[in-house]
Amino acid sequence: MAKQIGVIMNGVTGRMGTNQHLIRSILAIRSQGGVPTPDGDLIVPEPILVGRNEAKLARLAGTHGVSRYTTNLDSALSDDSAAIYFDSATTEIRMDGVAKGIAAGKAIYCEKPIATTLSDAMKLWESAKAAGVKNGVVQDKLWLPGFLKLKYLLDTGFFGRVLSVRGEFGYWVFDGVHQPTQRPSWNYRKENGGGIMIDMFCHWRYVIDNLFGPIARLSALGATHVPERIDENGKQYTCTADDSAYGTFELENGVICQFNSSWDVRVRRDDLLTIQVDGTQGTAVAGLRECYVQSDAMTPKPVWNPDVKSPIDYYADWKLMPTRDDNENAFKVQWELFLLHVAADGPFPWTLLEGAKGVQLAELGIRSWNERKWVDVPPLS
Amino acid sequence: MAKQIGVIMNGVTGRMGTNQHLIRSILAIRSQGGVPTPDGDLIVPEPILVGRNEAKLARLAGTHGVSRYTTNLDSALSDDSAAIYFDSATTEIRMDGVAKGIAAGKAIYCEKPIATTLSDAMKLWESAKAAGVKNGVVQDKLWLPGFLKLKYLLDTGFFGRVLSVRGEFGYWVFDGVHQPTQRPSWNYRKENGGGIMIDMFCHWRYVIDNLFGPIARLSALGATHVPERIDENGKQYTCTADDSAYGTFELENGVICQFNSSWDVRVRRDDLLTIQVDGTQGTAVAGLRECYVQSDAMTPKPVWNPDVKSPIDYYADWKLMPTRDDNENAFKVQWELFLLHVAADGPFPWTLLEGAKGVQLAELGIRSWNERKWVDVPPLS
Amino acid sequence: MAKQIGVIMNGVTGRMGTNQHLIRSILAIRSQGGVPTPDGDLIVPEPILVGRNEAKLARLAGTHGVSRYTTNLDSALSDDSAAIYFDSATTEIRMDGVAKGIAAGKAIYCEKPIATTLSDAMKLWESAKAAGVKNGVVQDKLWLPGFLKLKYLLDTGFFGRVLSVRGEFGYWVFDGVHQPTQRPSWNYRKENGGGIMIDMFCHWRYVIDNLFGPIARLSALGATHVPERIDENGKQYTCTADDSAYGTFELENGVICQFNSSWDVRVRRDDLLTIQVDGTQGTAVAGLRECYVQSDAMTPKPVWNPDVKSPIDYYADWKLMPTRDDNENAFKVQWELFLLHVAADGPFPWTLLEGAKGVQLAELGIRSWNERKWVDVPPLS
Amino acid sequence: MAKQIGVIMNGVTGRMGTNQHLIRSILAIRSQGGVPTPDGDLIVPEPILVGRNEAKLARLAGTHGVSRYTTNLDSALSDDSAAIYFDSATTEIRMDGVAKGIAAGKAIYCEKPIATTLSDAMKLWESAKAAGVKNGVVQDKLWLPGFLKLKYLLDTGFFGRVLSVRGEFGYWVFDGVHQPTQRPSWNYRKENGGGIMIDMFCHWRYVIDNLFGPIARLSALGATHVPERIDENGKQYTCTADDSAYGTFELENGVICQFNSSWDVRVRRDDLLTIQVDGTQGTAVAGLRECYVQSDAMTPKPVWNPDVKSPIDYYADWKLMPTRDDNENAFKVQWELFLLHVAADGPFPWTLLEGAKGVQLAELGIRSWNERKWVDVPPLS
Repeated sequence: MAKQIGVIMNGVTGRMGTNQHLIRSILAIRSQGGVPTPDGDLIVPEPILVGRNEAKLARLAGTHGVSRYTTNLDSALSDDSAAIYFDSATTEIRMDGVAKGIAAGKAIYCEKPIATTLSDAMKLWESAKAAGVKNGVVQDKLWLPGFLKLKYLLDTGFFGRVLSVRGEFGYWVFDGVHQPTQRPSWNYRKENGGGIMIDMFCHWRYVIDNLFGPIARLSALGATHVPERIDENGKQYTCTADDSAYGTFELENGVICQFNSSWDVRVRRDDLLTIQVDGTQGTAVAGLRECYVQSDAMTPKPVWNPDVKSPIDYYADWKLMPTRDDNENAFKVQWELFLLHVAADGPFPWTLLEGAKGVQLAELGIRSWNERKWVDVPPLS
Repeated sequence: MAKQIGVIMNGVTGRMGTNQHLIRSILAIRSQGGVPTPDGDLIVPEPILVGRNEAKLARLAGTHGVSRYTTNLDSALSDDSAAIYFDSATTEIRMDGVAKGIAAGKAIYCEKPIATTLSDAMKLWESAKAAGVKNGVVQDKLWLPGFLKLKYLLDTGFFGRVLSVRGEFGYWVFDGVHQPTQRPSWNYRKENGGGIMIDMFCHWRYVIDNLFGPIARLSALGATHVPERIDENGKQYTCTADDSAYGTFELENGVICQFNSSWDVRVRRDDLLTIQVDGTQGTAVAGLRECYVQSDAMTPKPVWNPDVKSPIDYYADWKLMPTRDDNENAFKVQWELFLLHVAADGPFPWTLLEGAKGVQLAELGIRSWNERKWVDVPPLS
Repeated sequence: MAKQIGVIMNGVTGRMGTNQHLIRSILAIRSQGGVPTPDGDLIVPEPILVGRNEAKLARLAGTHGVSRYTTNLDSALSDDSAAIYFDSATTEIRMDGVAKGIAAGKAIYCEKPIATTLSDAMKLWESAKAAGVKNGVVQDKLWLPGFLKLKYLLDTGFFGRVLSVRGEFGYWVFDGVHQPTQRPSWNYRKENGGGIMIDMFCHWRYVIDNLFGPIARLSALGATHVPERIDENGKQYTCTADDSAYGTFELENGVICQFNSSWDVRVRRDDLLTIQVDGTQGTAVAGLRECYVQSDAMTPKPVWNPDVKSPIDYYADWKLMPTRDDNENAFKVQWELFLLHVAADGPFPWTLLEGAKGVQLAELGIRSWNERKWVDVPPLS
Repeated sequence: MAKQIGVIMNGVTGRMGTNQHLIRSILAIRSQGGVPTPDGDLIVPEPILVGRNEAKLARLAGTHGVSRYTTNLDSALSDDSAAIYFDSATTEIRMDGVAKGIAAGKAIYCEKPIATTLSDAMKLWESAKAAGVKNGVVQDKLWLPGFLKLKYLLDTGFFGRVLSVRGEFGYWVFDGVHQPTQRPSWNYRKENGGGIMIDMFCHWRYVIDNLFGPIARLSALGATHVPERIDENGKQYTCTADDSAYGTFELENGVICQFNSSWDVRVRRDDLLTIQVDGTQGTAVAGLRECYVQSDAMTPKPVWNPDVKSPIDYYADWKLMPTRDDNENAFKVQWELFLLHVAADGPFPWTLLEGAKGVQLAELGIRSWNERKWVDVPPLS
């Protein structure tokens, strides 16, 4: 039996909202007929688009055959057929939208960062808990095909004991002078919520928590390597936010995780984001979709001798893990889990509290950077 | 005209001393007839081996046709034909040997670290200065073919403005349980002068100073990821020294340098040591012998889309720099410069003071690690 | 808001006019909805086809869904909805058509050469200026994707100081004896306006002016390497026009540009037209769509030794520039700029004066060839 | 029967003289036992080295087991066992040496340019003729393996009628600032006989004469693209000679030959020197050792369409000619012919008159450059 479930989607006219949440998740789920429940039902999400610009909404709805849209969030929230409120508006106004969703008794699902401060984030979590509404936060990277392979290796004991983790995220973002840039200018303005540390530390929090263990403390450093860029209107502007963030995380289990994030690096590695995990029994380097492994049995024994060309090709003693299952869009996988959570009480541990932890890590990162010292990561509850 | 110059070589029975200093430097210079001076003379070094184990010395001398060796350092130092005292003994006893060499009025050349503490290192430098003897410290990595290519790129303005530097040194050192290890056990014992931070920070100091600029402050973290290993006699021992060291260096010019050193990582990169330098106009990744470049003109413009295999091969948009000149052994190149310095007053800026700076950085790294905060790097003089 | 703008297209029944101007430019712009202005409007061109052969016009209009066509240029010009007169008729009759367009107060856009003599070309420019009508000439090669890459390299200082430029245009045009030829016979008859020098020097003028700088003087040589060919009716005819033109241009900035044009060469290079630019810091070889670069860092150091196979592969030390943005048809790009110029006062520096400069260079080339000496290129105004 | 023949070799301590003439020619001929004559004899050259620096001569003689050397040319010339005088000293002093050789009745063989002016060159030729001595000039490029393949194609009618010839010689010579240069500084100083036009036009003369036909007239342009370089002593100097020479030659048979020579170009072609010959029936591109051909049957029929990637790979429709015979060093081949000429009256058309023609072409090239016009090439006799 198909069960229709209304999903208020606030703020999906941006590139990310449109592509990942509307087209590749909600509409893709509709195309496939819905999400099958253990009981054999199909949960079919019915999107109701909400935004500020009616023309944009109309065009988006028209292009993709979405029948309902409105600029009036309150009226959308008053619709009883809509059980879910989803928010991917800008972070500044998210607090307000999510609070309204909670007040209306909707299940809450939202993008990260869930708020601009830990205090606000915790308020959202507390009020959702108090209201008894189901809730969740987008943590898409957990379902990247490459990271699922990493998870498999962790679950099957491939690494022995994990020793250290190195993450490298980033690529070259053109400054717009001779080559048009590929990111919006607000990313580079602190006053508009920009900065790579706040953006990426929210991701590193759930990636580390879920894959490697709880973070005990961290040391972080931000930098604005490129001080001026050209904006969407061809005007030069001063970059006030960090475009590179260097973070070192010590886990409670002693593992050291180092994650670099940068919009100022050229990429000589397997992918735009790679994570190398070294363990006593083996090492893996995961990208967005693929994962290379080198087990103890395959590990070469190098000798330092710069006088001759290395007899070892350091890329050769690695094997690509096979892709055993079809790759699904990471956002869609999590959407399906959330729909099952709401409509069929499936498990969904990625609550607003987890979202708050991401905001916490970003806040602590900035504190560490400002105070130039390590800071502890206290538990949240 | 050939000018003979005696070189007292103390402590070259170890692998490094024998291979790099005796065979590939001093004996190689002799085979080629000496070092040519600007005046058309040839400087020919005459080695006098000094060590504690007479049998070992005799074997080494015999194998390589060296006529003079002794276990008596004092008698060697009393030989007026020997103008140079070279020390590659263990760090603990270097203080003593170098002090004697200075007292005997010899030109001093020695391995790094030049002492176990900054205080001792400065004493050596001060006394050499007071005695008016020429002096130098081994800084071999400056003449690695790959680093000379990096230097060329810096000199020719390839990078535009340098933004950040990432160094990765390390490889998997087997623990000796099933596979014999490839490093001596003292490396892993603090009480024997072990530890990767003290070893490698001495290198990073001169590499950074010479290539990228003066270091303003640093944050460092050490870890002993593998707590037990098997020693040379097949006995398990507890590792008391760090086997991985994570260092972040902020330069006076704003460049951020991150250097990881580890004996617990498997290598998925171009070489055992790679340095990636990102600049506004281009990026290079140098290994021991080769260097890959990507200039602005070659830089791709990636789009984040994990749903499809990346249309860009991130290793493809790079070019290997050509090797235009013959590669020389890095130790030999520096030896030739030191011989020219002693015999023909050639320039040699890599004095014991530079060696002391390396010890300083290692000491500050350990302090940063202990205190869990950034520490400034004060100037030495 | 969509703004319709009538475009009288005279002489687009030929291959070039039909494909490049009608189908890939005007009709393609219509398919995409028009050209967006900075104010958010859309400029939609409405073609009115003009020609001498009504049957041909009818067929062309029918095939492509163009509603308006006529053999009467005067009536077309009397249509007030048509703001633009475009001319790609043969050069001999262009003078007349363009003059009428000017008289009718239309904005003028036309193919090159804009006239058969400099004197005529200047008359067109003067009368357009006097009449105050906007005007422009097709200079499509400026928007070839490969040349845009070259422009990027020039703008970003890739070359350091430019030293010299070598252009090679041409391919093998079969003479029609055994293999049907791929060019019209009038190209090879001087009495019909043929000749490769007049054709290509019009291009070289704006390519050199826009990319490399003003031309001070030139030396040119034409040749008719293949004296007889077979025409469209299978009849042998005598070639009276040059089929190869060798030009050397000295720029005011000292750069030497050498451009060969030939219909009698077989192609062993990257493309039908390649331009090699050598500079102190790097070299590029651009084709129609791609561009190979070799920066100083990638430059090998060859040694002349014909006794052994070269250890250097001279094609290997080059990198293909990435295509960062979608390639657009070069004619369409310029059409969009001209429509914006007419309807929204956008900049359009490629006026009839620039077209006259092309004719001037061709005329001077022929003079240099006849007089067998270098000739100066005086400024036009 | 082995016939010893003394060869006075004046000025072979330079790189070219030592490698090409002494080691790879004379000594190689000795190693193989001599040059076989049609009569079954073996002609064995006995070198007598002459030079100004006795130490250099002694070392060269010692290294290569040559028993005779002297700094006294007159005494060498008085040796009756020496039938040949060979001169590869600097051009400035060649006049004198060759004149003495003629006076002593020796057969004369010398490097190009045979003199610094045509007038001097003709004097040498006239006096050799008057004295009745055999004589010859080095024209090594005729025996480059790649050019022998070109000759084969010409002889076998591969090209049909030859239409045009394009030669590209050159490569990037570093200026010495960051990368040591690979050419001597005198090459770049007019006052020391430098300049690429005088160097290369001597070659182009005999290459064109022998392969393509007599030159009717020429237009030439020289340029000094890089105005300052670093000399052998690390000092900056001003370049007073041309480092690039652009030459267009019109042959009596109507063929147009264009030869570019440059020390300021990066190489994107098959070899350091390539010659493309286009003919009615086929085209060839020859390098130093290899030659690619495209006959009419293999010629593709390209269509100009920059909107799509070319469906033709313009390097694909070419075939490498097989190397049917062993490649011999070009200098050695000519030496063998000269030895046969002297000792067994073999044909040797490459007389000093041919050498004078090379000097003539260089002189006319410089005149054309100065006067900025075409100049005729009058016959010499």
